[in-house]
Amino acid sequence: MKLEKLVGERFKEKPSDCQVESHALMVRGGYMKYVANGIYSSYMPLKRITRKIEQILREEMDAIDGQEVQFPVVMPASMWQESGRYESIGKELVRFSDRNDSPLVLGMTHEEAAVSLVREYGQSYNKYPFMIYQIQTKFRDEARPKSGLIRVREFTMKDAYSFHTSQEDLENYYEKCHKAYERIFARAGIPEVVSVASDSGMMGGSVSHEFMLLTGIGEDSIAICSECNYKSNMEAAESIIKYERKEPSQTLEKVYTPDKQTIEEVCAYLNASAENSCKAVVYQRNSDDKFIVLFLRGDLEANETKLTNHLGFDIHPAVITEDSPLTAGFIGPVNLSGDVIVLYDRSLKGMNNVICGANEKDYHYKGLDFERDLQGVQFYDFAKIKEGGICPKCGKHTIGVFRGIEVGNIFQLGTKYTKSMNMTYLDSNGVLQHPIMGCYGIGVGRLAAAICEVHHDDYGPIWPKAIAPYQVHLCAVRPDNEEVKAFADNLYNELLDKGVEVIYDDRNVSAGIMFSDADLLGVPLRVVVSPRNVKNGVVEISARDKSFNLSAQMNCALEEIIKLL
Amino acid sequence: MKLEKLVGERFKEKPSDCQVESHALMVRGGYMKYVANGIYSSYMPLKRITRKIEQILREEMDAIDGQEVQFPVVMPASMWQESGRYESIGKELVRFSDRNDSPLVLGMTHEEAAVSLVREYGQSYNKYPFMIYQIQTKFRDEARPKSGLIRVREFTMKDAYSFHTSQEDLENYYEKCHKAYERIFARAGIPEVVSVASDSGMMGGSVSHEFMLLTGIGEDSIAICSECNYKSNMEAAESIIKYERKEPSQTLEKVYTPDKQTIEEVCAYLNASAENSCKAVVYQRNSDDKFIVLFLRGDLEANETKLTNHLGFDIHPAVITEDSPLTAGFIGPVNLSGDVIVLYDRSLKGMNNVICGANEKDYHYKGLDFERDLQGVQFYDFAKIKEGGICPKCGKHTIGVFRGIEVGNIFQLGTKYTKSMNMTYLDSNGVLQHPIMGCYGIGVGRLAAAICEVHHDDYGPIWPKAIAPYQVHLCAVRPDNEEVKAFADNLYNELLDKGVEVIYDDRNVSAGIMFSDADLLGVPLRVVVSPRNVKNGVVEISARDKSFNLSAQMNCALEEIIKLL
Repeated sequence: MKLEKLVGERFKEKPSDCQVESHALMVRGGYMKYVANGIYSSYMPLKRITRKIEQILREEMDAIDGQEVQFPVVMPASMWQESGRYESIGKELVRFSDRNDSPLVLGMTHEEAAVSLVREYGQSYNKYPFMIYQIQTKFRDEARPKSGLIRVREFTMKDAYSFHTSQEDLENYYEKCHKAYERIFARAGIPEVVSVASDSGMMGGSVSHEFMLLTGIGEDSIAICSECNYKSNMEAAESIIKYERKEPSQTLEKVYTPDKQTIEEVCAYLNASAENSCKAVVYQRNSDDKFIVLFLRGDLEANETKLTNHLGFDIHPAVITEDSPLTAGFIGPVNLSGDVIVLYDRSLKGMNNVICGANEKDYHYKGLDFERDLQGVQFYDFAKIKEGGICPKCGKHTIGVFRGIEVGNIFQLGTKYTKSMNMTYLDSNGVLQHPIMGCYGIGVGRLAAAICEVHHDDYGPIWPKAIAPYQVHLCAVRPDNEEVKAFADNLYNELLDKGVEVIYDDRNVSAGIMFSDADLLGVPLRVVVSPRNVKNGVVEISARDKSFNLSAQMNCALEEIIKLL
Repeated sequence: MKLEKLVGERFKEKPSDCQVESHALMVRGGYMKYVANGIYSSYMPLKRITRKIEQILREEMDAIDGQEVQFPVVMPASMWQESGRYESIGKELVRFSDRNDSPLVLGMTHEEAAVSLVREYGQSYNKYPFMIYQIQTKFRDEARPKSGLIRVREFTMKDAYSFHTSQEDLENYYEKCHKAYERIFARAGIPEVVSVASDSGMMGGSVSHEFMLLTGIGEDSIAICSECNYKSNMEAAESIIKYERKEPSQTLEKVYTPDKQTIEEVCAYLNASAENSCKAVVYQRNSDDKFIVLFLRGDLEANETKLTNHLGFDIHPAVITEDSPLTAGFIGPVNLSGDVIVLYDRSLKGMNNVICGANEKDYHYKGLDFERDLQGVQFYDFAKIKEGGICPKCGKHTIGVFRGIEVGNIFQLGTKYTKSMNMTYLDSNGVLQHPIMGCYGIGVGRLAAAICEVHHDDYGPIWPKAIAPYQVHLCAVRPDNEEVKAFADNLYNELLDKGVEVIYDDRNVSAGIMFSDADLLGVPLRVVVSPRNVKNGVVEISARDKSFNLSAQMNCALEEIIKLL
């Protein structure tokens, strides 16, 4: 391919709407173009990258006995009504009607389609286990698409679905798939991806893992223990607080705290530490706006995922008005009345001498003893794990909190979908059973962007060899020089003959423009033929990642390049 | 791959909802499964076939300097408003809104997206020509999906768009693409595909060709001359009628034709030939139901495409009520009054002694002379070409009419989209110009189904080698026989080692079931290891297309199979 003919524009200025480097570089390098919010078109360089990623995905899925199938993008609403998700999923699921007013949806995931495809096939135990997967376009109407290809509305995804007759078999396969994912990320050039325990969210099921690429721009927070191998998504990480009573309990006393509404203000005013306080975080049930009050230790934050899982319904941050049964800024567990759901985080269990709201404007209590003053209270884990917190695995205060991009996930779904969609098989005793499912996803575009995010410099992406759009970027500097042009043309053709993916820049432009374009395309090997090099009888070969830069004799150039690849 | 593990069911009974053989065989063979009207999921055998077709498409598009890109499935309505198609296309275009009430469409074709992707890139003449293509899912809300994958609503398509600075350059490229299409169909095993001139329809532009696979179940009619190489879609074929007056004109006379409403009834009643009559075909304008009356010779049929192209607006067959200004069954050109658009087919030009309606219940005229009795009438070509009609190219009465499936199309679009979407470039004189476009489509699933339609027998598809899901179907008949199993297992592994795509049936089922499953999978080579064969020291190798059936010595089996591939 001649660079002159490559459709797409490359330019120097960082686009103002790009918050993350991968997005800016992929726009500046002519990889992608904005179509609508969270929707992009790909130019050829990106298409070549994603096709290589897809091929890696395909090979690794085939290697664990996956069968490539294809589900439709457009599905009938009835299929999603069967699983119950037509009602339970919010606006992310695009719903529309066809010319006959039949309700349809756009596929954002394909558990329903997978069950539907194999429901008749999988009627006997001897068909199991099996795994089917597809690589297909999906659409999810995200509220806030951002960061280029990292959070989009339309995306290409590899999604796989396995079916089993026992939990043990699922777990074995889950482990195989976990290893396949490790191979995929290693082959794609990011072996540093870590898998972390996660919350299963809307997918259902219990055990699940996310594969995280740690980078500051990640949207997810991950708790990692520096001592043992514990890793978990913040949403799923258990928060452990060890509390020991240090002093005898004081009496419960109401104190005047004028205009001190936040827990920080109150603690400062009363000269106490936030660790000795109890704060209230208030939500409302989506369906009827009923209030939910969560009490937790003043220095901790609420983990909404744990809260939602406990409640079993969707909630939103509360709007407290004068008509509400709650006194905003002064809410506490003592004498709290009104039609509200009250929950306690286990950080509070056993605490004494605690400061808390008095449910009365401008008043707090001090000296609260949770054992003495509150009866029949249940404590659960509703708090976020903290930097420096206790590791749920090794018990040391060694938790660090990091940011990461989720580049893949695997779920043990159990029988959520096979039960709701009534998929059954006869086991070896002739008894009807529901198969047990796992599902396994990797977003292709997001993976490409994530790789760019951790493999770039100021001048462009540094694509790992296995997914680079080309292997060699050949520059003929000053192609008006006959010797340069003749040698470069010949080398280009020789490389093509050898099956090397080469992009050839023989434009009449300055070396500066050539090199900055080469940097933006991020091809592993750059080969420069120039008048000076030709005069010295050499070509210059350098690595995009700057790991080497050498001169090869012109007559050995081809050989040297092949060797370096 | 072991057949035992292949997800999907194979069965004998023809499904009652399958009208065409390819559909029935692809359902019976476990290739596809119904999801909703015109929407299917694919099992692995079909996915393997379509991936091979896609690879052929990719190679041939790359060979004519195509650059693979990707457009989104979901596009903003604004993009289609720019081209005017948001309004002009009917219900086939799915329109919906996202969570923010922004109007979106599902891509059914991507001219708008293509122009939008390259509008900034193509601002100078020296960037031209270039071609971009994608292989992507599309959705078209067809009124009547049918025939399995031949007419669906969701489909995968290779669509390509070329951009040029002169009509001549477009024509050269168009010709290159025409040749690429011939190579594609030849490689996919259907070199018999013919290209025919066609009407450009909603795509715009003037010159276009459809690639037709002739088969009785085809939805399109094609006129082919048996003498010269003239081929045309019926919609586009010129209808030529040579009329010579044989007798002097009789006087125009009104005759009583009680209850004779069809032209056949009237001619029979008056003892005349339909070729001496003038019939009326009536339509209504979609926008306001205004009547359009088309007169043509009694034995001819109206070509609605020609009619719509002439009128420039959409029409539908008329509903004539008692309030209409027309007398159904008795409409004729003489004394026709009322607010109607009247059109004349050129078959009528110069005719005399013609029978026609009298615009009065139960009356017709006879003795009409178009030159004498009607003034200022314009005649155009509105009729369908007939079997045995005159070839527009060689002038002989040698036209045959055939049915065909459209497996590809190419269009010279001209500047329809670049003008409406204001894509311009500076030419070498510094003058702003609109680039000239071509577009080129092939539906992947339809191509697979069309190939099956012309390459099958009563027992299953006969896949051409280049697109077959596997190359070898190995059967171990009576795998409980140790020698059979050991030899077949070994042969299976040897074939895998050689990189041969082999499906291996070692199930404990009868030879009958094995062979009927093999027929349904349609793999080119079938290799049978059985107790009798082993006893004779041979394996049986046969072609799915029945072109040969031979015995190979067991120790040469591998070699023989490789040779046959």
